[in-house]
Amino acid sequence: MSGKRVYLYDSTLRDGAQTQGVDFSTADKTAIAHELDRLGIDYIEGGWPGANPTDDAFFAEAPVLTRARLTAFGMTRRAGRSAANDPGLQALLVPSARVVTMVGKTWDFQVSVALGITLPENLKMIADSVAHIRPRVDEVIFDAEHFFDGYKANPDYALSCVRTAYEAGVRWVVLCDTNGGILPHEVEAIVEAVTLVVPGSHLGIHCHNDSDNAVANSLAAVRAGVRQVQGTLNGLGERCGNANLVSIIPNLILKMGFETGVSASDLTTLTHVSRALDERLNRAPDRHAPYVGESAFAHKGGLHVSAVEKDPRCYEHIAPELVGNRRHIVVSDQAGRSNILARFREIGFDIDPDDAKIGGLIEEVKRREYNGYAYDGAEASFELLARRVLEGLPERFRVHSFRVIDERRWNSRNELITLSEATIKVEVDGESLMTVAEGNGPVSALDAALRKVLIPVFPQLADLRLVDYKVRILDPKAATAAVTRVMIESADGHGERWATVGVSANVIDASFNALHDSITYKLLRDGARQG
Amino acid sequence: MSGKRVYLYDSTLRDGAQTQGVDFSTADKTAIAHELDRLGIDYIEGGWPGANPTDDAFFAEAPVLTRARLTAFGMTRRAGRSAANDPGLQALLVPSARVVTMVGKTWDFQVSVALGITLPENLKMIADSVAHIRPRVDEVIFDAEHFFDGYKANPDYALSCVRTAYEAGVRWVVLCDTNGGILPHEVEAIVEAVTLVVPGSHLGIHCHNDSDNAVANSLAAVRAGVRQVQGTLNGLGERCGNANLVSIIPNLILKMGFETGVSASDLTTLTHVSRALDERLNRAPDRHAPYVGESAFAHKGGLHVSAVEKDPRCYEHIAPELVGNRRHIVVSDQAGRSNILARFREIGFDIDPDDAKIGGLIEEVKRREYNGYAYDGAEASFELLARRVLEGLPERFRVHSFRVIDERRWNSRNELITLSEATIKVEVDGESLMTVAEGNGPVSALDAALRKVLIPVFPQLADLRLVDYKVRILDPKAATAAVTRVMIESADGHGERWATVGVSANVIDASFNALHDSITYKLLRDGARQG
Repeated sequence: MSGKRVYLYDSTLRDGAQTQGVDFSTADKTAIAHELDRLGIDYIEGGWPGANPTDDAFFAEAPVLTRARLTAFGMTRRAGRSAANDPGLQALLVPSARVVTMVGKTWDFQVSVALGITLPENLKMIADSVAHIRPRVDEVIFDAEHFFDGYKANPDYALSCVRTAYEAGVRWVVLCDTNGGILPHEVEAIVEAVTLVVPGSHLGIHCHNDSDNAVANSLAAVRAGVRQVQGTLNGLGERCGNANLVSIIPNLILKMGFETGVSASDLTTLTHVSRALDERLNRAPDRHAPYVGESAFAHKGGLHVSAVEKDPRCYEHIAPELVGNRRHIVVSDQAGRSNILARFREIGFDIDPDDAKIGGLIEEVKRREYNGYAYDGAEASFELLARRVLEGLPERFRVHSFRVIDERRWNSRNELITLSEATIKVEVDGESLMTVAEGNGPVSALDAALRKVLIPVFPQLADLRLVDYKVRILDPKAATAAVTRVMIESADGHGERWATVGVSANVIDASFNALHDSITYKLLRDGARQG
Repeated sequence: MSGKRVYLYDSTLRDGAQTQGVDFSTADKTAIAHELDRLGIDYIEGGWPGANPTDDAFFAEAPVLTRARLTAFGMTRRAGRSAANDPGLQALLVPSARVVTMVGKTWDFQVSVALGITLPENLKMIADSVAHIRPRVDEVIFDAEHFFDGYKANPDYALSCVRTAYEAGVRWVVLCDTNGGILPHEVEAIVEAVTLVVPGSHLGIHCHNDSDNAVANSLAAVRAGVRQVQGTLNGLGERCGNANLVSIIPNLILKMGFETGVSASDLTTLTHVSRALDERLNRAPDRHAPYVGESAFAHKGGLHVSAVEKDPRCYEHIAPELVGNRRHIVVSDQAGRSNILARFREIGFDIDPDDAKIGGLIEEVKRREYNGYAYDGAEASFELLARRVLEGLPERFRVHSFRVIDERRWNSRNELITLSEATIKVEVDGESLMTVAEGNGPVSALDAALRKVLIPVFPQLADLRLVDYKVRILDPKAATAAVTRVMIESADGHGERWATVGVSANVIDASFNALHDSITYKLLRDGARQG
């Protein structure tokens, strides 16, 4: 047996950089390396020295790591060259990386077709490259490219490749499923065969997610004896991505009883580390991501909610705090009484569960959801609806009418321009106010006009701003004539964010309703803050 | 052994409807049911009769399916009531569903804590409910909730629950990993134990993805003998989602040699079915999704591309055509030329690769994509752009100006109404035409006005209709003041469908540009048809 310590090897900065749409700067790479180091990853693969200017700049000014070992990635020497005379190989010897990972072929078909050389020549390339690099660094790692396809095609040759690397002195031989097509039961059987040649304590696994099994394949390999797991944060990587370390780490620690460099306390930062990467990539985190997604511990169905409140084990596979995540109760069409009551408690709204009005509210929520409202992502509109039904909500302002004009015409310089202008008439404290404003479209103009007319009366609206605006057509068959749902996200100077929803056959109407809710909610909150 | 036929059970319309942010209309459910039926799914779980108005409406006007069996979902009878006197149970007997799936408890802790009843009473609830429903439908299925947690806590009791259901006459006993926390090796061991009590040919598996192993767990169960697999399209479902049928189906068929209701020919529609669901949800398909993602067979420039060109097996685990996907060569900015030429060939547009204008077109495409255009989903706009740059496109009509007014006011019956009205001035064959029309919002009004003024001149526009309209804000930080991208999908009486795109800081402008392209494309196509 290889013991219970599993070493974690992160390739976000190298294989993850191959993700379509991902383009790390040197500063990005440095920031991510620090996050990985703090988390307790053992090896951080920084990139491929000599392959591109970003990776060269990163290694030239490499971050100082306190726990992890920085690793440089490259290929074994080229055919027809000595290791000492291969500039690609020399480039891997960067002072900041005391570990070098070299990838080499192990599939006979690849050796013949992609490299066009003989099978023994490939073995010599592996042995030479390791022999050359080994004395110059602390550790050498051999990534056995296409190992599983190679093993299926020619097990003897695939095994002789990894034996060659191991005997040449590498610390780890890493079995790579380069095409990502393997299944867990195959991994388990093949790794067991490999452990007869290379001990599990010197074996690693590197999976891709093309069959949607990268995490399971990695775990199967560990069960079969390997003690190093390679992967990336959030499963970044080309095609369908690499094995997701964010899922693998808690599975290994919490469910399989293995030890890693990530302590129980480090593990509580996992959700943060995952989301910080998405922030850096300027993309919305996957709310359904296992362990760390915003919805990973969200409860929607009515039955589930009452059961979760009785005992979280009913619908949670682990306590969300273990990975730094939290429980979240959501409102929906499925919602029963217990959901709605739980939501109230979450927004700090005390209500007597026996209040007779609760039934009316549930009916109202269901009726609205049937007509296209969705309160899942619009908690502020939900709170306003509840307050209106249950306790009456003071109407701080009343919009009497509005008119928006969008006009496309040729201006005096013979340019085609489109202008949007909104006129609005509002009643505040019995006084009628009217104004007009421009915007980049009808909703932008309406927003500008509403705030222009209200800010003199409610100065707290000055720091309100819209941060997102989404439109969805609910019955696409009718397209522009269908019912439209608009979601607006707003923020203010107190760092608060809230979302509101509006539904109407007319998109302007729907947008206006969502805007109206946003302003009403802000006034309610600030009233509460002053009181 | 249970044979090689595995039955597929889809729960997109029931468990998938629990996804946070997903809110199916009855029309959505009907359209999805038809897609599933065409794909070759065996059972389609339509919803929970009696639980909400959407599901009731769906079953009341259920789609006529040709291959799949429509299934109603619900719970076993409540404690302290006879099956015949339980209104929830009666509600499951809807004429349109000849299969009923009932969920019941199998975890002793759940029986005691969540239901608060004795263990024998729960067995009786299972037996009574099956006995009552069984004679009234074609098939009964028992979903054994929390089965794996139950088995770990009290194997004898968990087994007695599934034995009770099986002996009461259910066609399938489905082992549910309700919390989604189980791992594949545990599934395999536990299912093997269950097959000693219920034969694998009567066992199903229902997994959730909380440990990122839902697909692997489902496959492990099939290897251990179960012959029904439950899941959802694209892994929809609450928290981290259900097992993704879109990954499971090709794994079963292409890699494990099982037979399903999905034929090899049906399998080539898998990519379409997956993306159609996302279209309906108005969300961007996951480009990294295994098998069906846009990037699933994408190769970045460099070594991989030349290797893939030598032999696709070098970096592809299956041939993309098997699942209706395609290879995608991602070309760097420097090499945009071959990419754009490949796109021309895709839309059947012949062009001389040495044409000097190609360079100008590439620059124009890059400039536009930088400014927010996306031609991936808007082939019609791409073709129009190419024709304009390369060969000049005759301008069949010219919009001189337009004005849209949206007005919200109180009508004479003291109702708040919002009206949208568009005025448009168009030049056709040197003649100036002007008209006005109403619509359910500014874009709908513009569409109506444009067609009203053009149909007398171009009668072929009479059968043009918009089938979808989507708005995306490209820089969410600036919200309504940001750049907006509008995608419009159109269809005509010849059964053709095409998509166009418009981008502008002003959403009306962006919408109008997409509308204009749609009409121009239709006139171009019909010209080609006549010629």
